[in-house]
Amino acid sequence: MSESANPHAEGILRQNFPCTFDQNAVEIVPGPWPTEKKKLRIGVVFCGRQTPGGHNVVAGLLDACTKHSPDSELFAFVGGTKALFENNSQKVENATMRFFRSQGGIDMIGRSVDQICTEEHLSKAVATCQALSLDGLALIGGTISMTHAALLSEHFAKEGLSTAVVGIPGSVDGDLKSNRIDTMFGFDTASKAYSQLIGNMCADCNSAKKYYYFCRLMGRAPSHITLECALQTHPNVVLIGEEIAAQNQTLADVVKSIADVVVARREAGKNYGVVVIPEGAINSIADIKLLLKEIDDLYAAGKTAEQIPENLTAWSSALFSSLPTLTQGEFLLERESGGSLQLSQIQTEKLLCLTVTAELDKRKEAGKYEGGFSPLAHYFGYQARSAMPSNFDATLANTLGHAAVALIAAGATGLMANGRRLAGPVAEWRVEGVPLTELMTVKTTPSGPEPVIVGADVNLNGAAMKLLTQLRDSWAVHETYRNPGPIQYAGEQANDINITLQSERETTAVRLKEVEEQCTRILELCRSGCPPRNLATACSGLQSVVSILEILAKD
Amino acid sequence: MSESANPHAEGILRQNFPCTFDQNAVEIVPGPWPTEKKKLRIGVVFCGRQTPGGHNVVAGLLDACTKHSPDSELFAFVGGTKALFENNSQKVENATMRFFRSQGGIDMIGRSVDQICTEEHLSKAVATCQALSLDGLALIGGTISMTHAALLSEHFAKEGLSTAVVGIPGSVDGDLKSNRIDTMFGFDTASKAYSQLIGNMCADCNSAKKYYYFCRLMGRAPSHITLECALQTHPNVVLIGEEIAAQNQTLADVVKSIADVVVARREAGKNYGVVVIPEGAINSIADIKLLLKEIDDLYAAGKTAEQIPENLTAWSSALFSSLPTLTQGEFLLERESGGSLQLSQIQTEKLLCLTVTAELDKRKEAGKYEGGFSPLAHYFGYQARSAMPSNFDATLANTLGHAAVALIAAGATGLMANGRRLAGPVAEWRVEGVPLTELMTVKTTPSGPEPVIVGADVNLNGAAMKLLTQLRDSWAVHETYRNPGPIQYAGEQANDINITLQSERETTAVRLKEVEEQCTRILELCRSGCPPRNLATACSGLQSVVSILEILAKD
Repeated sequence: MSESANPHAEGILRQNFPCTFDQNAVEIVPGPWPTEKKKLRIGVVFCGRQTPGGHNVVAGLLDACTKHSPDSELFAFVGGTKALFENNSQKVENATMRFFRSQGGIDMIGRSVDQICTEEHLSKAVATCQALSLDGLALIGGTISMTHAALLSEHFAKEGLSTAVVGIPGSVDGDLKSNRIDTMFGFDTASKAYSQLIGNMCADCNSAKKYYYFCRLMGRAPSHITLECALQTHPNVVLIGEEIAAQNQTLADVVKSIADVVVARREAGKNYGVVVIPEGAINSIADIKLLLKEIDDLYAAGKTAEQIPENLTAWSSALFSSLPTLTQGEFLLERESGGSLQLSQIQTEKLLCLTVTAELDKRKEAGKYEGGFSPLAHYFGYQARSAMPSNFDATLANTLGHAAVALIAAGATGLMANGRRLAGPVAEWRVEGVPLTELMTVKTTPSGPEPVIVGADVNLNGAAMKLLTQLRDSWAVHETYRNPGPIQYAGEQANDINITLQSERETTAVRLKEVEEQCTRILELCRSGCPPRNLATACSGLQSVVSILEILAKD
Repeated sequence: MSESANPHAEGILRQNFPCTFDQNAVEIVPGPWPTEKKKLRIGVVFCGRQTPGGHNVVAGLLDACTKHSPDSELFAFVGGTKALFENNSQKVENATMRFFRSQGGIDMIGRSVDQICTEEHLSKAVATCQALSLDGLALIGGTISMTHAALLSEHFAKEGLSTAVVGIPGSVDGDLKSNRIDTMFGFDTASKAYSQLIGNMCADCNSAKKYYYFCRLMGRAPSHITLECALQTHPNVVLIGEEIAAQNQTLADVVKSIADVVVARREAGKNYGVVVIPEGAINSIADIKLLLKEIDDLYAAGKTAEQIPENLTAWSSALFSSLPTLTQGEFLLERESGGSLQLSQIQTEKLLCLTVTAELDKRKEAGKYEGGFSPLAHYFGYQARSAMPSNFDATLANTLGHAAVALIAAGATGLMANGRRLAGPVAEWRVEGVPLTELMTVKTTPSGPEPVIVGADVNLNGAAMKLLTQLRDSWAVHETYRNPGPIQYAGEQANDINITLQSERETTAVRLKEVEEQCTRILELCRSGCPPRNLATACSGLQSVVSILEILAKD
């Protein structure tokens, strides 16, 4: 989640990344490969969680490096970073690759837990890259993996190792996005796969007209997936974690807002509906967040699960004892070494089923609600993150693989492969390498400032969120369910992009294209041989545009 | 589930269905509609559970009746049989229909619980059909609905009502199948939608390599869906309820068989896998079935949930107390009016996660198993039964709607619309009306013999099951996971039919076509004018074929 900006960030980053900090983004332009075709040796490691498109990155790397020189070799570290440290690699052959092209999961090369942190890890990575004489190492994963790519590239450069490190961003969470970065691969597929399921649930509840379906969606803290799925399917209620946090909502507030919709629908003669809940929502609820933090701290202070309830503060203790037994048990689950609870282990959908039922029972007793309430809880998790990639993700992931090879061939290190103008037609996509340090912020930790790449929260003022705000009041009672259906690979819908990308970035893609076209046109008009008057006009006009943009850039 | 044949069945059926019993199947052949275009008034009611293709049936009825005569009218009973009894109908207009064509769910016309049983229901149905002057009434649903269609058509005929009743079989369970009936609409879509999810789970577990996914599939007692999904996805373990029942397996047997696979996989260095479980499996397990029966009986005898455990027999009591608390609670859930527990309320996947864990712990203590075991339970239920229909189901459902109109136009009652040669290309499909009474068996109940249409169990000697038996040993340890991906509407895979239909009925479809072609050829060769010798040869040859077939028919 977002951190407040550290005013010394630039200095800290320059200090931590002396070799890789001061560099610009590298634009990758189409053109012939260099005539001296140096054979490339590239390593690839999948550091994140399963992401649709993972195999396409590997295919892109393989295709691009063998196109560069047929003698090039791609080595996959089979089993994630663990395999990188132990130099457990396998040459990727087309004969194997073809079985995995555009398949879901990442079973061809496997994965392990995210972990490149310690000095020992860094030295082992150096040893492996030296042993294999790698020209480049591609790290695929989410924000944590991109942070590791930055650390690794700096370390390699400091050690004088010639292995270029390139990050390739992919995650179903879709949280690596900014004005600079349109999206990461995997998000499009995952949100479409979940939307298909939610669309089916909407059709189902509208047919049976007797159940409330509470559906929790995978996707860690930010609610990007939930936002996209809501825009795709129009459920009656959608929770957005960032909104709950911004409004400082308590559990009682959230429960009340859902119960209000149930009551309003009941008054309209409807006793069914769909509620969509992001996995991370639970930790955005103000009082729950405090309670979980207290439990974390008590565990850290050596208390046992049995001792925790009696050691809570009065407020948290009251909240804890008001929770369903199921949830109490989940909140007390043993912490992983990191110290905090895995959000995926909390069945927020069940907690809300139970608490909304209790709220409605109360209203019934008070004569403010009549009729039953049959909630059913669903978790849509593992079944989407290994889905077959959509055409968009397959193309993007493959393209990023190609981009990484181009960067490695140019000897550029510390960059992340990035696609621009992705909301436009594929023919108009552009690729570049963005310095990983440029994406970093500095987090304040007990052990001092720590440079990291953090995921973006849902922008409550962004175009996608505005669209949701505009539409969702009408969904609550007058349902206009929408079922986008299964992901298509042929036919009209096959190349539809997700609504988030479309609403947030389509205008940017169009404008960027226009700017580039105008510049190209000016260059065409100002060839040598054209009258000096024309050149003078161009210079003066352009200079004023540059001045204005420079002023704006300082804001 | 299957009933042992009642030797007096034919007599009982003839007695119960004097008006509709003695009739033959009606072949519907292509040809011009009658020149005297009588305008038709048809009612349609959806009696079953949500089934992909439901809207296509309605569209087929609408298209066919307005093609028959543009003045024809189709009335939907909005809200299932309840609406039929209350004459709550709405004329189906193309303007509305077009929003629902090929959509999932059945929200355009709704549904209610299955219920046409009492004399009062029957008279109300008569009153409604009289009030609307219906020429025909189409009932869409599963085996229970087809039974009701039989009762209704007999009652209408007895009352001299001219409304023809036609059944249109659809259900995700796919259990109305026999030598006569290839399949029902809905099964193809549901099994493909679940297969997509299971395929993703297989890719996921093979990528993370740390979890066992236990997936329970909706589909009531017979295991048809699970069988099809297993053939599509190749999970490590698949339970088939009919097999468990046939082998008289106890819970301990089932747990042991799964634990054996876990141990064998562990020895092969693999600590992950996928187990697929049909919803109905729980009631096929010998000792669990007895226990559930005892609980049903104790409830029927007026005992409360608290009193039940102490009133169980010694065997059942021992089993009950060995079960996880979660399962105990589910087993004691209050019965619906029918008397027995809804299988969907039992989380068999969690029961098996817990009991297999306990079994492995025991083996670990005995030194027979090393290493961990991380099971995760999933239920794939409501998200498939309202999925958008596959091309196969959309076409079949629409075709059956057309067939029903043809039957109604011909004044035929007591028939079920049925497609033949469905495993072949659509151009070679044939449609017919099969007498509903022909599909009936006689069930022995406490209140006497009861004619019903029952669903077919998985045929353990059938082609699909044989294929499973052949393949699955190799899936247990040497996984060959297969991911069929999302249902496609365009492109190469769009018209693939499911493996069950293909393996069980493709040969039949080909042979049937050949028989029909041979007969047509003989008729062509034996026109009037052909030499008497040829006719004599044909007669003699055909007579011998007929005699042999008649002898075989008696077997």
